[in-house]
This record gives sequence, C-alpha cells and structure tokens, in this order.
Amino acid sequence: MVKQVIIVRSDISMGKGKIAAQSSHASIGAYKKVKGKDPEMVDKWEREGGKKVVLTAPLEEIMEFLKWATEKKIASYLVKDAGHTQVEPGTITALGLGPDTEARLEPTEKLKLL
Amino acid sequence: MVKQVIIVRSDISMGKGKIAAQSSHASIGAYKKVKGKDPEMVDKWEREGGKKVVLTAPLEEIMEFLKWATEKKIASYLVKDAGHTQVEPGTITALGLGPDTEARLEPTEKLKLL
Repeated sequence: MVKQVIIVRSDISMGKGKIAAQSSHASIGAYKKVKGKDPEMVDKWEREGGKKVVLTAPLEEIMEFLKWATEKKIASYLVKDAGHTQVEPGTITALGLGPDTEARLEPTEKLKLL
Repeated sequence: MVKQVIIVRSDISMGKGKIAAQSSHASIGAYKKVKGKDPEMVDKWEREGGKKVVLTAPLEEIMEFLKWATEKKIASYLVKDAGHTQVEPGTITALGLGPDTEARLEPTEKLKLL
C-alpha cells in the first residue's frame, strides 16, 4: 500500500489550525515532487484512497528523517513557515514524505502519531 | 492575493493528527481541481507562498459553503473520511476551497479560525 507521511514538530507550540495548515503545505509539497517524477506512484496512492499519516517528532529527528529520505530517494518537502503567526519567520514546522510504499516508509513508524 | 481555504467540521470530535490529515486531503483535493482548470491561478498562489487558511464550521454551514462555491465556480473538494479511526465511515470532515482570489473567497472570512 502507498501512503504519505507528514511529521509535525513536537518541540514548538502551534494551535490546531496552524498544524493543519503546515501539514497541508507538507502534503502538497511532497505530492508535487512525486507527481513530477513518479506519477504512477501518485495514481496508485489515489486509487487506494490517498492515505495520509500524521506523526510528530522534535526538530532533530525531523532533520534525520530528511537526510534518510534523501539517501533513500524518498520524495520529501520541508516546510519553513513564513512566520506571520505563532512562530518566527523561517521556522521549520513539518516534513512531508511521499506518497511512497509503506515498506519504504516503515522507519517512520517508530514515531508517535500526532 | 490568492489563498486556499480549508473548513474543518466543528461539530464532530477529531484529534490534532486527524484534523491535519483531513485538512491535507481537502487541500490536495481542491488544489488538483484548480490545477486542472486554471493552472495560472495555481502558479500565482505558489509564487505568493501558497497561503492556506484553516477555518471551522458545523456541517450545515460547510454544506452551504459548498453550494455557494459551486454556484460561484470556486473549486471545492469535500472530504469524506474512510472512517478507519475516530469517525464513522463516510463522515464529512472538511471542505477545501481554491486556491482562488481573496476577493472571491471573502464570504468565508466570517467563519472562525480553527
């Protein structure tokens, strides 16, 4: 099965709406990367219902997953907030990964669900 | 300026992660509709930073906005949850609108921020 993983920072304070907006940025950002290089993966994901899993981790762990994704050629999109509200400009808020296969995204399963 | 509006249901109980996932569904769903029929709007939105505003309303009001958007030819995407967690299968959880101009989306400004 194909899924998308969104990892939201656990070590900064954001309200529900802020989290939802940052997750949407991460989701669209990573989606567009996959759409561009592997449209069949996107098609498969959509046929299966477009599964999205939202997890949470501190910045350090998010950056480790970014490095890991780059090494594994898993599409990633790091969200830096414009900082109009709640956080400083340029603050990293979330990471989007995939859609990609659940097997390839398995290492993210150790993270907590948001 | 161009923005996307996501309206999350206020009258059902969902955790932060669930809300983030439903918002991401709404965001990608509406984005794809606009991308298909008005790619220049999407380009403008992205150049301006991809602004997303997450609001909240009860189901009845979400359905009124869906009707309004259809009449005004504003791209919309209604999210029905598969219901694996937290809500019953088929439950409407969120509505994505646009990206479209802030002027055209102005009526949504009466809703509360999530």
